[in-house]
Amino acid sequence: MSHDTPQKLLEQGMAMLLQRGYNDMGVTALLEATQIPKGSFYHHFSSKEDFALQVIDVYMTEVHKGLDHFLGDKSVPPLKRVRGFFEGTVQKYRGEGYLGCLLGGLGQELSGVSETFRLKVEECFNLIAGRIAVVLQEAIDDGDLAKGTDPQKMAELLVNCWEGAALRTRLRRDPAPLMEMLDFYFRTAAA
Amino acid sequence: MSHDTPQKLLEQGMAMLLQRGYNDMGVTALLEATQIPKGSFYHHFSSKEDFALQVIDVYMTEVHKGLDHFLGDKSVPPLKRVRGFFEGTVQKYRGEGYLGCLLGGLGQELSGVSETFRLKVEECFNLIAGRIAVVLQEAIDDGDLAKGTDPQKMAELLVNCWEGAALRTRLRRDPAPLMEMLDFYFRTAAA
Repeated sequence: MSHDTPQKLLEQGMAMLLQRGYNDMGVTALLEATQIPKGSFYHHFSSKEDFALQVIDVYMTEVHKGLDHFLGDKSVPPLKRVRGFFEGTVQKYRGEGYLGCLLGGLGQELSGVSETFRLKVEECFNLIAGRIAVVLQEAIDDGDLAKGTDPQKMAELLVNCWEGAALRTRLRRDPAPLMEMLDFYFRTAAA
Repeated sequence: MSHDTPQKLLEQGMAMLLQRGYNDMGVTALLEATQIPKGSFYHHFSSKEDFALQVIDVYMTEVHKGLDHFLGDKSVPPLKRVRGFFEGTVQKYRGEGYLGCLLGGLGQELSGVSETFRLKVEECFNLIAGRIAVVLQEAIDDGDLAKGTDPQKMAELLVNCWEGAALRTRLRRDPAPLMEMLDFYFRTAAA
């Protein structure tokens, strides 16, 4: 049972951080929700900050799995693979009640006061955009995107517009802003 | 002096909310920064929530002033007016150290737990998008945007992509994500 303890805490903590944000997530409430004693939390995590950073790592492991799944299938045209990843993410958001993106939430809340979180979240977006850029380069090579396109810039743009649409989805509990953003981006990127 | 008290608190509070977010902004720190006694705060504001909602109102008054200024000049083509508003906002962000948008920050942090803030921030974005949509309709009438364009959807899209770029600007302390988003949007919206 103690073997599952950190995993249980990280999973519950991810849900709580997504809903409540960092400052409003109480460690006591987390322990109550998981029925895990305080000493056990501090055995596995040195602080609440350490805990939240590890939650981000778990979140990113899931994101990379999604990227592997959607971007890796070379039988699908590159732009369709990229769009597939984001449409898969909409489904993930649906399962959480359309609360948006944990990276966007923690990035907004903490990057004004914490260099640690500012750099961590920025690094996550960089990694995601970097993986998308590789596939956009394939789209350029295939002639599906204009030759002069900068794949890194176009990937950053997609990730950034996505994050804004995800905020609006969180505000409305509605996936429409995400789908409309994808429609606009892929219609115009490929034009 | 007491006549300026609420204004002084709201101005200082706006800067603190933009940097620290809601939960990390202490009323005590606000009172220390402004040298205003606690009783005076609670004379003007019923609670921290009431205070933050009034900060949003002040923020929106500034946004509306910016919209009046940039959208109102009919001698400028409509799309140029809309872009001018956002470029003016970049200048505003620069003066604050590129911390992004207060609405995006509070919307992310609080909309998972507070219906009051969720509805308030969503209403603000609706108002901004609504005013932009009026000018996009002018652009449609002038033939600068395709006839079939839905001005409300295109305005929402712009506001949403902006918010994502503003988050990235906050993470990087760099205006480039905002300018690249505007370039993409106006290049492709007008295509």
